[in-house]
Amino acid sequence: MTTTAHDRLDEDPAFALHRGGKLRVESSVEVADHEGLALAYTPGVARVCSAIADSPELVDTYTWKSKVVAVVTDGTAVLGLGNIGPEASLPVMEGKSLLFKQFAGVDSVPIALSCTDTDQIVETVVRMAPSFGGINLEDISAPRCFEIERRLREVLDIPVFHDDQHGTAIVALAALRNAARVTGRELGDLRAVVSGAGASGLAVTRMLIEGGIGDIAVADSKGMIYAGREGLNAAKAEIAAISNKAGLQGSIESALAGADVFIGLSAGEVPESVVATMAKDAIICAMANPNPEIHPDVARSYASVVATGRSDFPNQINNVLAFPGVFRGALDVRATDITENMKLAAANALADLVGDDLAPDYVIPSPFDERVVPAVSAAVAAQARKDGVARA
Amino acid sequence: MTTTAHDRLDEDPAFALHRGGKLRVESSVEVADHEGLALAYTPGVARVCSAIADSPELVDTYTWKSKVVAVVTDGTAVLGLGNIGPEASLPVMEGKSLLFKQFAGVDSVPIALSCTDTDQIVETVVRMAPSFGGINLEDISAPRCFEIERRLREVLDIPVFHDDQHGTAIVALAALRNAARVTGRELGDLRAVVSGAGASGLAVTRMLIEGGIGDIAVADSKGMIYAGREGLNAAKAEIAAISNKAGLQGSIESALAGADVFIGLSAGEVPESVVATMAKDAIICAMANPNPEIHPDVARSYASVVATGRSDFPNQINNVLAFPGVFRGALDVRATDITENMKLAAANALADLVGDDLAPDYVIPSPFDERVVPAVSAAVAAQARKDGVARA
Repeated sequence: MTTTAHDRLDEDPAFALHRGGKLRVESSVEVADHEGLALAYTPGVARVCSAIADSPELVDTYTWKSKVVAVVTDGTAVLGLGNIGPEASLPVMEGKSLLFKQFAGVDSVPIALSCTDTDQIVETVVRMAPSFGGINLEDISAPRCFEIERRLREVLDIPVFHDDQHGTAIVALAALRNAARVTGRELGDLRAVVSGAGASGLAVTRMLIEGGIGDIAVADSKGMIYAGREGLNAAKAEIAAISNKAGLQGSIESALAGADVFIGLSAGEVPESVVATMAKDAIICAMANPNPEIHPDVARSYASVVATGRSDFPNQINNVLAFPGVFRGALDVRATDITENMKLAAANALADLVGDDLAPDYVIPSPFDERVVPAVSAAVAAQARKDGVARA
Repeated sequence: MTTTAHDRLDEDPAFALHRGGKLRVESSVEVADHEGLALAYTPGVARVCSAIADSPELVDTYTWKSKVVAVVTDGTAVLGLGNIGPEASLPVMEGKSLLFKQFAGVDSVPIALSCTDTDQIVETVVRMAPSFGGINLEDISAPRCFEIERRLREVLDIPVFHDDQHGTAIVALAALRNAARVTGRELGDLRAVVSGAGASGLAVTRMLIEGGIGDIAVADSKGMIYAGREGLNAAKAEIAAISNKAGLQGSIESALAGADVFIGLSAGEVPESVVATMAKDAIICAMANPNPEIHPDVARSYASVVATGRSDFPNQINNVLAFPGVFRGALDVRATDITENMKLAAANALADLVGDDLAPDYVIPSPFDERVVPAVSAAVAAQARKDGVARA
């Protein structure tokens, strides 16, 4: 591409903003002279190194390790763009780092890997782990993302969190809890149908089950997932075993008849005629981006509560409500893991912030609500202590 | 260790300075509202990702990749401390990043690896490379460091530079060139003896040969290295083949009799009686840290020029004179490699800065001389263009 073509790209404000990247590293101490150099570097630094070699826990106090998160991807499931490779994924990873910093003061570094093999990703992250206080996995395609996260959580003593799964799940549970409340029900009263059996679809389903939803069933491109359906991969077989108590089979359209909740986490559209068959006081979370599974204005004529992933409609279900506060809380207490309870605590803290302002168009706080990160991080840190995974 | 013990550590100003680490990540754009979020993150960021997927070279313009260096170690040869492991090496790596930033505005990230196997280090760095514009290898023990650097240079299209080797070599060559000049000689007139066949000893030897030194021979713990000596590893056999034209065998003490230059890059001491046998107008670079191989005050009574690695004596041979400017220059032109010519250009630029102020106690500029980084980076960038490795 020529320089002129580049200049033309910058007419798009998104490109102009990205020119030169979105991150920089700063030093928090200044070396002004030989004396400063002798403290921050040789020979003074050798005393700090020796102390850590003798007492390994000092690394948390005298380096930035316990403050910095690696944002790790392999570029295989980037936004709605799919497998675009590590380099092309970097703008998203830098964006994540930017949001970590701006919303929660968390330092983080994008690490986009050129390998996509599960074993290779796991071993690479394990080898890098001495430098980091946490691992945020990002935009790694299903089903590899499940095994990668599970194995890293087993072997590492720092928090590992696949945001596409759990960030979305935390925010969705908070929104659903409040959507139930604003329509005079509890989660246990609701039957939900999830469209999309990728990372976020399965994680949302699991978290809503943990949160106590009445029943929930997931559809993939072949229709409803139920125990015993042929050809299910391990992740879908697991979800089949714990979801879909009603044993729904066949199309998502038929499953939606009489359902209380629709959760869209795929690119597929849902026709207005199908939404019309849902139960009274339906709740619709159409989170496909940028085009929701059904337009919110249309959905609103059949549903009591409508949420999307978009910022230009009410009730935005945005991961940024979760991951900054979750890591802030986990790092603050030097947690060795992010437990299921800590995720539930984050969801409850988020839901509680809405309080008495609850309304059909306000079931979840805004990403720019300054109470969000303090509330989420405090809840996560407190739960880490209760769960025995806090080291400070 | 108890909190009280920690507090006591901070009575040492080196510990107080290191508390909380020495680095932080900042975002260079601010996201103040939904519109900002829509440009820096979804949906705007997707257009930038797609453009890079279509035209991979755009990653250099629209991400921080081409600006950020990974400072990679395995913690096996940290300062004079040896194999203290990745966590304990982090204060040095953060120090490196601090100096990169402060001296040359280069962003960098410490990556301390938990593996020490050559193949594993190479494959790990290759997998991380999509995120970085350069790789600074640091404190990896010899002889693995040679193969690791060679293989990474072969396979990656970004600069790879083992600072312990080449940083030291560049500065030593610059100092030697000026030391020869101040004593009315040329490099070609000098016979040098190097104590220490580790990463820096072998790299300094190689660079002085490339720079045109008359003769140079290296000693390890078993004495002088010569072609045909039994039990040499590959790196020492290579150096034997290109050094020690005089065919010196036996002890370093006997080799130093009549030698013009002593270069100390080991922890071993050199007795005053041995230094006394060196040639007239001897040049002594006693770079062991913190204790030079011979005290500079003693050395000065036998030698015309004395240099050390310490800041409290004249002629400090400090890597910080080289690596910030070398990477600044390489990144500025998006070099795909750091060639031998680029290292020689850096050494010559450093030596030239001394100019007419040349004196026995001033053969090399101070690390705080603000002309250093601009001169080195300009020389490196110009040479990269001449060598055909510049991409911008």
